[in-house]
Amino acid sequence: MEKKHFTFDELMQLETRFRASLINSLGGFKSVALIGTKSASGQTNLAIFNSFVHIGANPPYIGFISRPDSVDRHTLENLQTTGYYTINHLNESIYKAGHQTSARFRREQSEFDETGLTAEYRSDFWAPFVAESNVQLGVKFIHDVPLEINGTLLVIGKIEHIYFPPGSLSADGYLDLEKLGTVAGSGLDSYHTTQRLDRLTYAKPGVELQSVAIDYLE
Amino acid sequence: MEKKHFTFDELMQLETRFRASLINSLGGFKSVALIGTKSASGQTNLAIFNSFVHIGANPPYIGFISRPDSVDRHTLENLQTTGYYTINHLNESIYKAGHQTSARFRREQSEFDETGLTAEYRSDFWAPFVAESNVQLGVKFIHDVPLEINGTLLVIGKIEHIYFPPGSLSADGYLDLEKLGTVAGSGLDSYHTTQRLDRLTYAKPGVELQSVAIDYLE
Repeated sequence: MEKKHFTFDELMQLETRFRASLINSLGGFKSVALIGTKSASGQTNLAIFNSFVHIGANPPYIGFISRPDSVDRHTLENLQTTGYYTINHLNESIYKAGHQTSARFRREQSEFDETGLTAEYRSDFWAPFVAESNVQLGVKFIHDVPLEINGTLLVIGKIEHIYFPPGSLSADGYLDLEKLGTVAGSGLDSYHTTQRLDRLTYAKPGVELQSVAIDYLE
Repeated sequence: MEKKHFTFDELMQLETRFRASLINSLGGFKSVALIGTKSASGQTNLAIFNSFVHIGANPPYIGFISRPDSVDRHTLENLQTTGYYTINHLNESIYKAGHQTSARFRREQSEFDETGLTAEYRSDFWAPFVAESNVQLGVKFIHDVPLEINGTLLVIGKIEHIYFPPGSLSADGYLDLEKLGTVAGSGLDSYHTTQRLDRLTYAKPGVELQSVAIDYLE
């Protein structure tokens, strides 16, 4: 297929925002979710991130990339200081409010108040969840890994609590994010609902793939 | 909202595959793409990954998480040895072939041959691209960061080449992955097309968000 081509040198010559938008598109669709924190003095904070990555299931770890100098600095400071944060999936009803959390609010402003999202406390967990979110994780900060290549941090946390609506978990452990309305992100500013093509069986050499049914638990 | 709740201890008591499926769902929708490599002796390899993460745009870096002991060991070995790999987006026509690359083929088998995908060479780049993929990245291996918490590796690469079809890049740098048919993944085995809700303007305190138009370049 005839394609457009950019080399590294051409990418480096692009205008900064153009390059940021393009490079952020190249990884494909990605998670966008809200990280909720509360400072030691009780000030809540909420910030959108799009750089989550699965680290492990046994035990359950999740990571995200944070810039030390970005608008999310209150998030990083709060979770490093208090040890806890929440990760809350976006859905169609709250993706605009979620995007608005990326505005540079002052430290004494809570993004919950500013965007109309509701702080919810569960299980005596320190950090606030987002009440309007269908999938909520309570995460304990483990450590951050500085990436010397550009000064970003890989923040690693242990999943201590998960919450999701009844009727969305399949008997084989698959959580139906599409049924729950979780949205996907692309680039820096684009939000998408999804339509499932299929679930596929565990791949084996020489064996044709089959569809996997979803058998919802109550 | 009434929700189901699992604590860390309850998650740890789940059957291994059930837990893997559930925990892999919790991060939200994610990139799924094919990594193409070629060994020093010329043997090609292709493997599906779902753990990509944006590391930076200036300069352009992309990361992914690899288990040292998993089916992707040929990928890791090849890119560490030769220094190069490709990342190729999945679309609706090739997601099943892409999933099939996760089968445990022998070292002397190429997943290109076994799944019917076509190795394509561009710009004298060492590693093979996937001809059927609309968005192709040529990546230079920089280094891997061992994550002591569970022995996985964060593999970091520099984006040296990008290829995509004409008419899909907007004048502001946004690449329209939805138009290109890039699919999103969820859990361990689920593939999804997308429908854009909106692109939203850069958020500022007290300013209402607007839609951002897409102005395709030729």
